[in-house]
Amino acid sequence: MIKVGVVGGTGYTGVELLRLLVQHPEVNLAYVTSRSEAGQMISEHYPNLRGRLDLKFTEPNIDELSTCDVVFFATPNGIAMKSTPALLEAGVRVIDIAADFRLKDLTTWEEWYGMKHACPELIEEAVYGLPEFNRSEIKNARIVACAGCYTTASQLALMPLLKSGKIKSDYIIVDGKSGVSGAGRTLKTTSLFSESSANFSAYAVSGHRHQPEIVESLKHYTGTEIGLTFVPHLVPMVRGIFVSAYLRLSEDMTLDEIQQCYQSSYDNEQFVDVMPAGSHPETKHVTASNMCRLAVHKPSKDSVVILSVIDNLVKGASGQAVQNMNIMFGFDESLALEAVPLAP
Amino acid sequence: MIKVGVVGGTGYTGVELLRLLVQHPEVNLAYVTSRSEAGQMISEHYPNLRGRLDLKFTEPNIDELSTCDVVFFATPNGIAMKSTPALLEAGVRVIDIAADFRLKDLTTWEEWYGMKHACPELIEEAVYGLPEFNRSEIKNARIVACAGCYTTASQLALMPLLKSGKIKSDYIIVDGKSGVSGAGRTLKTTSLFSESSANFSAYAVSGHRHQPEIVESLKHYTGTEIGLTFVPHLVPMVRGIFVSAYLRLSEDMTLDEIQQCYQSSYDNEQFVDVMPAGSHPETKHVTASNMCRLAVHKPSKDSVVILSVIDNLVKGASGQAVQNMNIMFGFDESLALEAVPLAP
Amino acid sequence: MIKVGVVGGTGYTGVELLRLLVQHPEVNLAYVTSRSEAGQMISEHYPNLRGRLDLKFTEPNIDELSTCDVVFFATPNGIAMKSTPALLEAGVRVIDIAADFRLKDLTTWEEWYGMKHACPELIEEAVYGLPEFNRSEIKNARIVACAGCYTTASQLALMPLLKSGKIKSDYIIVDGKSGVSGAGRTLKTTSLFSESSANFSAYAVSGHRHQPEIVESLKHYTGTEIGLTFVPHLVPMVRGIFVSAYLRLSEDMTLDEIQQCYQSSYDNEQFVDVMPAGSHPETKHVTASNMCRLAVHKPSKDSVVILSVIDNLVKGASGQAVQNMNIMFGFDESLALEAVPLAP
Amino acid sequence: MIKVGVVGGTGYTGVELLRLLVQHPEVNLAYVTSRSEAGQMISEHYPNLRGRLDLKFTEPNIDELSTCDVVFFATPNGIAMKSTPALLEAGVRVIDIAADFRLKDLTTWEEWYGMKHACPELIEEAVYGLPEFNRSEIKNARIVACAGCYTTASQLALMPLLKSGKIKSDYIIVDGKSGVSGAGRTLKTTSLFSESSANFSAYAVSGHRHQPEIVESLKHYTGTEIGLTFVPHLVPMVRGIFVSAYLRLSEDMTLDEIQQCYQSSYDNEQFVDVMPAGSHPETKHVTASNMCRLAVHKPSKDSVVILSVIDNLVKGASGQAVQNMNIMFGFDESLALEAVPLAP
Repeated sequence: MIKVGVVGGTGYTGVELLRLLVQHPEVNLAYVTSRSEAGQMISEHYPNLRGRLDLKFTEPNIDELSTCDVVFFATPNGIAMKSTPALLEAGVRVIDIAADFRLKDLTTWEEWYGMKHACPELIEEAVYGLPEFNRSEIKNARIVACAGCYTTASQLALMPLLKSGKIKSDYIIVDGKSGVSGAGRTLKTTSLFSESSANFSAYAVSGHRHQPEIVESLKHYTGTEIGLTFVPHLVPMVRGIFVSAYLRLSEDMTLDEIQQCYQSSYDNEQFVDVMPAGSHPETKHVTASNMCRLAVHKPSKDSVVILSVIDNLVKGASGQAVQNMNIMFGFDESLALEAVPLAP
Repeated sequence: MIKVGVVGGTGYTGVELLRLLVQHPEVNLAYVTSRSEAGQMISEHYPNLRGRLDLKFTEPNIDELSTCDVVFFATPNGIAMKSTPALLEAGVRVIDIAADFRLKDLTTWEEWYGMKHACPELIEEAVYGLPEFNRSEIKNARIVACAGCYTTASQLALMPLLKSGKIKSDYIIVDGKSGVSGAGRTLKTTSLFSESSANFSAYAVSGHRHQPEIVESLKHYTGTEIGLTFVPHLVPMVRGIFVSAYLRLSEDMTLDEIQQCYQSSYDNEQFVDVMPAGSHPETKHVTASNMCRLAVHKPSKDSVVILSVIDNLVKGASGQAVQNMNIMFGFDESLALEAVPLAP
Repeated sequence: MIKVGVVGGTGYTGVELLRLLVQHPEVNLAYVTSRSEAGQMISEHYPNLRGRLDLKFTEPNIDELSTCDVVFFATPNGIAMKSTPALLEAGVRVIDIAADFRLKDLTTWEEWYGMKHACPELIEEAVYGLPEFNRSEIKNARIVACAGCYTTASQLALMPLLKSGKIKSDYIIVDGKSGVSGAGRTLKTTSLFSESSANFSAYAVSGHRHQPEIVESLKHYTGTEIGLTFVPHLVPMVRGIFVSAYLRLSEDMTLDEIQQCYQSSYDNEQFVDVMPAGSHPETKHVTASNMCRLAVHKPSKDSVVILSVIDNLVKGASGQAVQNMNIMFGFDESLALEAVPLAP
Repeated sequence: MIKVGVVGGTGYTGVELLRLLVQHPEVNLAYVTSRSEAGQMISEHYPNLRGRLDLKFTEPNIDELSTCDVVFFATPNGIAMKSTPALLEAGVRVIDIAADFRLKDLTTWEEWYGMKHACPELIEEAVYGLPEFNRSEIKNARIVACAGCYTTASQLALMPLLKSGKIKSDYIIVDGKSGVSGAGRTLKTTSLFSESSANFSAYAVSGHRHQPEIVESLKHYTGTEIGLTFVPHLVPMVRGIFVSAYLRLSEDMTLDEIQQCYQSSYDNEQFVDVMPAGSHPETKHVTASNMCRLAVHKPSKDSVVILSVIDNLVKGASGQAVQNMNIMFGFDESLALEAVPLAP
């Protein structure tokens, strides 16, 4: 049993994290903080937790959090970095579901996130939390920066073929689609039912924060410079990320060879499912689970399409955070993540 | 470990039952039959089960099913009754998620279901599968007829106040609302996305099969004749039943007394949650779980409103079936049913 | 051609009103005011109006509005009453889509709307804007208080049978269901896509403002005291109101007689469609139109169910406002309201 | 007034065509045929037409249809070609909303549509019905083959830049997204609400019929060979097509120059709206209207993204068919197509 704190439990990644943690046999959930809801029963705020979590939101308190083995940040960007130094000092390990430690390039980070970084000296140490590429570093990390939702789905889709060196890496298209929960529980007009229901739109076409994250991370793991056009879209559904990645072959590869390339990459990964070549994964095939499902297509001689689906709140956020925690503390990697996806 | 067979695994109650059973630690899932899909991998039909169930659909075969401890029927009405006598003969216990054994009155059954009953001699023995009212009989039953979705939500809402004797039982209104999965995976125009999305409608207003089931069962458990107007409606959502029950007091009761009446009725029930008086339960508060949540309201001197929500595929069908199985075999009643409802 | 002003054009009733008015051959749309968006092109705020309305939002200005023949208020409750006296003074007629003049009983109004009324002396003069019951008064009115969305659907459903005197008027149930646009464009958590999608809930069960409005108005038109339990619910769809009204006969009536009662009541009404007895109207049968469709059912000897559907933004708000304007200015009552409902 | 026949009025393009035609001041709708529903009132089948169309479905009858000025085919592929020769013989003009005459290359057509063409001799004469590129030919055509839904949105997006000659035409990506009504009213599992709601998926990734149509038509109008990867996706909404087109510049162009290129191309087109550069059109901005809205983006030095939205049932099918009819008969091109898009 480890003692766990959660900072910022009122948003969607927060409630999803709580849903997973209350079902985790090795977790003692000690603190869930929220400035705005301090004092309220968590199960009043999120009635799905009635009877499962008998705890109140508390004011964030470093002394209390310092008694934990690990603290999750399910907060907006810019919060985790403020408390991380003190927590590390106290010997607490930190898992950030937000973006504070995702980029190694400080200038890029400050440009895209529009603020000064509070602890630039810790950026180098922070470990990127995408277990399929980075498991051994995560194991010993003090700070884990969970990969973003689009970036997880995109990198799992792009990495194997990029590593093969057989694609034109200077012009890669990632057309991403996300459910509305990706925008969080913050009140904004575009997140209203009457705006997003029965509607489809793109956003941030001229530039989205996940673009530099994908580029930096892929370069880090493959050593290749890439040119990436990334366009995110909003889908009238609550959960799910769907990525359609368009790659152009620079050398001939058959569909079978492409399939082999993906299967061998993810052979031992229990949360990545390479479906038969030519399959059509759907976001519903992973709903409420930590799975990523992938399929490869080759519609013409040099054109390759990779489809990739995850649940943005699980493998794209809180599930991946729990997976990282399981690795960090030597638990079975799938503890609390065994749920079969929901259908229909 | 018990050996389990499932007849009719291709519909929505079927796939939901499989989702629950593959996570059940005491279940060895031996056969899943489907005439139409025999020979196909189940996980090809339902990709959410990829990696979790390595079994093919088989032709229904009484000899094979006879080796099981229990057989579930997740079939259309009229199928279970055909094989039940042979299975009982072979010492197999039967759990029917459909309606073949729900009514004790044969004439009423044949009228509403439009067919001759295949084994009327077994109707008397069959036990109505609503654990909250019938747990001890279920324990020893050979045949369990799981209560229907609307009827489960309605009876849990009506029973306590009806037992109190303080309402006018000759004019009860149940306004029911169901998600579209309640209509099953059968192809019908009204179940098409383009018809049911962005739409709300009533159906079967002049008479629905769950009306006589509610009336017969409530009379059985309370000894009271009731006059019930039941109107079902279709909601553009996949899962969920919402029941608004309207009762008129015949004797004065305060809101507190009504609340007490419900709390004491369900005090020991882990799958029935009586929320504080005046609460507004939502179908999302129970999604993908076996919970029923209830709330009582008293908008005027003699008018009482009971709100009741369940997930139609879990507590309204396959979850209740598993709960019944747990009772029949002496397992912990919540095995495989511990999932926290999904939010958002 | 008349000169028209709209106060408060940024909400959903506002944009719907503009959509109708720009298609009205007798309307010169002179001013659309919005404090928050003054100076912005309306078509930037609402791109569906691009190319159809070349006007900016302006600050509300009584002098400008005083040059209009009629001013619509598509504002929150409590705004129209502040400017109405000045506008009447200037000879301008006023149509309020909000609730400021809907109730004749001042005490009830102030209790339910939680504010002091700004011009109680005008309440008596204001005409209730439900043309099917009140056409001749609307014709000459200076102030028209458009009926609310639930109340329009409910009153059209209840009035004929209530007038017949053959129902028990002391216990009437109206179970109402509304699309999410009924909550307006205001930012609230319950209106978020991730909250209301795939969900069904009730709200304000212990008391909703439309309850006293229905009660007062029905009493006014029928002279009968009524006991009404009204429960509103939220449906995951943008547009539409569905009302299920439950009535108990005090004298025997056949289904045919009930049908006759409704047909004769609405024989000359072009916006009320009495469907054949036993029909199942759907909200989609009226989407984007000014129609109300009704159907009567008699599921048992003394139980009558009336189903009624409207588009809450058209017949439940802005369409009815235009219908009232057409009556007031002697135009064909259906001008700008001829649109055929959308399907699918 | 012209006399109009509609063959196949029971599907979604059929009912949308009827909705438009009953509002057309120059149309006398004489026949609506349906083999399956012959004898039934059309307004019983589509209650949105109650009170607006007093006609029954009839068996298709060439003698009757031969008395029309124009006959629309709102049928599955392969039907129109069977009756077209006889209708032309009788002097009737034909507008096909399906695909029978869309491709000039017979071999390609027979390969993709899996059948022999019934009147290959008429293919050459048939005019492609995309008015923005082909207005003068449509004017005098005897057969108009309305452009498909994806192809309309895609071609309007691609044409201007393709004509400029400044893009690499050998690797164009079109990532298309369609509402579920695009699959028609046919009963298929993937069109069920419980399958497509809360879900996002791709289909026909290795090859879709609209790919050769886009390629052939763009080559025809620009004289350029193109290499096109086209991937269609299914969105949980009823109406709408969203196209994200990815182009790579072969010569430098500023965002302003790209914008100019589009504005000058569509300057005189009342149904194509070039939004300001960098805009984010949404499918809701065109719902229930014949508009196409476009926006250009340039996320990096050589990467251009064009976003294009239409309502698949209007500009993508029946609205375009009416627009073509208006051109053929010398009516104002916008007759019956003036509706302002619906919001919200």
